[in-house]
Amino acid sequence: MTKPICAIVGAGEGLGRALAEKFASREFDIALISRSEANSSAAIEAAAATNSAANVRFFSADATRPETLESAIATINRGMGEIDLLIYNARGAFTACDPLDMSYAALEDVYRLEVIGAFAAAKSVLPGMIKQSRGSVFFSSATAAFRGSNTHPLYAIGKFGLRALSQSLSKAYAKNGVHIVHFRLDCDLDVPIMRDLYGEKYDPEKLANPDAVAETYWLTYLQPKSAWSNEVEIRPHTEVWTY
Amino acid sequence: MTKPICAIVGAGEGLGRALAEKFASREFDIALISRSEANSSAAIEAAAATNSAANVRFFSADATRPETLESAIATINRGMGEIDLLIYNARGAFTACDPLDMSYAALEDVYRLEVIGAFAAAKSVLPGMIKQSRGSVFFSSATAAFRGSNTHPLYAIGKFGLRALSQSLSKAYAKNGVHIVHFRLDCDLDVPIMRDLYGEKYDPEKLANPDAVAETYWLTYLQPKSAWSNEVEIRPHTEVWTY
Amino acid sequence: MTKPICAIVGAGEGLGRALAEKFASREFDIALISRSEANSSAAIEAAAATNSAANVRFFSADATRPETLESAIATINRGMGEIDLLIYNARGAFTACDPLDMSYAALEDVYRLEVIGAFAAAKSVLPGMIKQSRGSVFFSSATAAFRGSNTHPLYAIGKFGLRALSQSLSKAYAKNGVHIVHFRLDCDLDVPIMRDLYGEKYDPEKLANPDAVAETYWLTYLQPKSAWSNEVEIRPHTEVWTY
Amino acid sequence: MTKPICAIVGAGEGLGRALAEKFASREFDIALISRSEANSSAAIEAAAATNSAANVRFFSADATRPETLESAIATINRGMGEIDLLIYNARGAFTACDPLDMSYAALEDVYRLEVIGAFAAAKSVLPGMIKQSRGSVFFSSATAAFRGSNTHPLYAIGKFGLRALSQSLSKAYAKNGVHIVHFRLDCDLDVPIMRDLYGEKYDPEKLANPDAVAETYWLTYLQPKSAWSNEVEIRPHTEVWTY
Repeated sequence: MTKPICAIVGAGEGLGRALAEKFASREFDIALISRSEANSSAAIEAAAATNSAANVRFFSADATRPETLESAIATINRGMGEIDLLIYNARGAFTACDPLDMSYAALEDVYRLEVIGAFAAAKSVLPGMIKQSRGSVFFSSATAAFRGSNTHPLYAIGKFGLRALSQSLSKAYAKNGVHIVHFRLDCDLDVPIMRDLYGEKYDPEKLANPDAVAETYWLTYLQPKSAWSNEVEIRPHTEVWTY
Repeated sequence: MTKPICAIVGAGEGLGRALAEKFASREFDIALISRSEANSSAAIEAAAATNSAANVRFFSADATRPETLESAIATINRGMGEIDLLIYNARGAFTACDPLDMSYAALEDVYRLEVIGAFAAAKSVLPGMIKQSRGSVFFSSATAAFRGSNTHPLYAIGKFGLRALSQSLSKAYAKNGVHIVHFRLDCDLDVPIMRDLYGEKYDPEKLANPDAVAETYWLTYLQPKSAWSNEVEIRPHTEVWTY
Repeated sequence: MTKPICAIVGAGEGLGRALAEKFASREFDIALISRSEANSSAAIEAAAATNSAANVRFFSADATRPETLESAIATINRGMGEIDLLIYNARGAFTACDPLDMSYAALEDVYRLEVIGAFAAAKSVLPGMIKQSRGSVFFSSATAAFRGSNTHPLYAIGKFGLRALSQSLSKAYAKNGVHIVHFRLDCDLDVPIMRDLYGEKYDPEKLANPDAVAETYWLTYLQPKSAWSNEVEIRPHTEVWTY
Repeated sequence: MTKPICAIVGAGEGLGRALAEKFASREFDIALISRSEANSSAAIEAAAATNSAANVRFFSADATRPETLESAIATINRGMGEIDLLIYNARGAFTACDPLDMSYAALEDVYRLEVIGAFAAAKSVLPGMIKQSRGSVFFSSATAAFRGSNTHPLYAIGKFGLRALSQSLSKAYAKNGVHIVHFRLDCDLDVPIMRDLYGEKYDPEKLANPDAVAETYWLTYLQPKSAWSNEVEIRPHTEVWTY
């Protein structure tokens, strides 16, 4: 009996770890794709610990180099089987800068990570999913996809592009039975890097818990194809939202 | 052992019936609120048939007369207990007309149904939910809440108002642990009235199945409070969407 | 030689005064519609002072009673001629309250002012404009039309409805040569009431100057019909905007 | 007496020509930036013909190579003076393709044209404008910036990015007195390429006239800084709009 396969691009110790753990606990085999296995060790261990029957494997790729993603996914297909759920969860530096201080190289980098990498991953699984009239492609994104920013312009530009990609794919291939979703996280996540950033102001109630976010991904995965959401917003009940 | 109570305002043979059936099958007791029990007979029967252990009861109210909603919900509270999930699913005539042909009375009517009725229902359950730091209030709405219409202006005006209400309540009371959601149905539903409307062009694949929509309401109900959606879009995989 | 007629519903000492002055200076005759002539005295005087050749007249109506608006506009048509530009600029109390503290009466009132009154005014001029394939109907609105509010829910509900009305009318009658515009003021206005509200924090640089806002209305009026805007946002250069 | 300078990146025979002609007629000197002077000959001639007193000059640059834009603008600054209004109106191929048929190279190209080129142009003028607390940067964009597309995904991805850039710059530098605007053309333009595309269905009433669009750019340029629009939609009165 084969399990369905969930592949996660970008599996650090935050949301990636939570997603790996969630889908392993829901009887998926897990393929984790990151630049280095060391960075994914928390995710690998959590997935394996939650379900000893799950096949949890690591594959190396650099999300900013699309060919490496294609290659990693081809390796997954050969070694584990067809991917049922692809989650593109790559995360670059969340660099703050004045818009005028953006370099052309930084603009290229964020686009390669957020758009071209996302497309490379989607392109590597969609033809198979279309053929079988089933499958899900989930993109982790943020409210930055909805409005520009005077403090984090690179992030906004990348996420706008990711949202355009997600909508375009969904409008083209939903009719083929593939569920493509843009997840807008309208909050900060309760992950180690944020705990450091907040310092004394750290309050877990004000942040989205990554395991809760992973649960909402799972619930979205369960939506029947006659009643899909293609853009899902996620925020903790404490969030003061403006968009 | 008491079951949680799901109250549904507006329970005809379409989505209301599907919601009653879905939440009965998920071990809720069901309180149906409509103008006449005859109109709710399909919902009552479906809920009872799917789960013989469910307590399914009917309460009379006119959604355009807020005091009758308050009164019906007070009766539910006394007779069945506190409501855990309120679904405002009232539906008036989906009247087509030129904007210039709207009467003042029709403008008042649609507002009473879509906004004042929705508020009356929410107001009747929210203080109790806030006190207990739990509960859910779901509003059935449509893409009409996002854009005006030259053919169905009354519907758009009503749904815009409903969305403003839903956002306002959510921004005020989510922090108290109450999950308030605006469901945007971006499609026509596969219900008897639509089958008649479409005639020979009727194709169930192009419409949202009400049982699938009810399933997505249920999945939304399950979202953990650290990762809520407050605005949920729903469309069938075949929908050509523009907003 | 007859001048074109600009009718303004809601002409207090703030934006209404600025609009009356602006269009009088641009060679319009001005018809001011408010509940009491006393409230419009600043507007009347400013319009007359800026252009002694302008015919500036007052007409009494209550924007929450649509028949009085119809009647006032009929009187204008008979006494001054066909209206070329109608500006609906009525403004009620900008009441702050918790959503749960809204009364049904307050919900009705804000709708009558923001939606039914706006429709009554538009309905009174549109058939004539459509017949002549020209004319403009401008609605003064706010960012509140785009998002709900936990502090000013009544205002948001009213403005959402106004935006739905404006879009619906525009989608229906733009093709007949009528320019219908929803102006979103994304800021507070530098008017006496705001100066009081801000107190020591009052800083004219942070507020939109009403004469500048009136200038942007005028520039919008000048748009050629092959390149119209139907939703215009307005904010001072100092505004920190989030939507 | 020096005239203000309007620099236009992308000046073909359509909107670029109309903008050159409009701002020349409004007493600007005109700097046209394109890859080849031949492509800009219609714009050059139209600007010179409308106002023989206008200084109309051509500068060569490739909008997909940011250094060439920087260099062209530096040349303009030295030879003509500081730019008062920069219009980024570059236009690539409006390629139709299935999302899965996008190549990585095409994704890079559209981003270089729509985002990096736009940023390079803005970056070359903004420090000077900020120093003088005046100036305008206009981006020609489209409704494609608001929604993904199953038929023109490259265009949507590029325009989403351009909108994010425009918002980010505006939020950062409006307070310094620089007017940054994203123009959303919600229509096809009545330009030679579209006449060919429409063939027998060509109807100038259904398209936006480029001279009218240029007039709306001009009217936007005139907005006082206390009442700016930062996102301007433009559509002909005949347009059936859905967003």
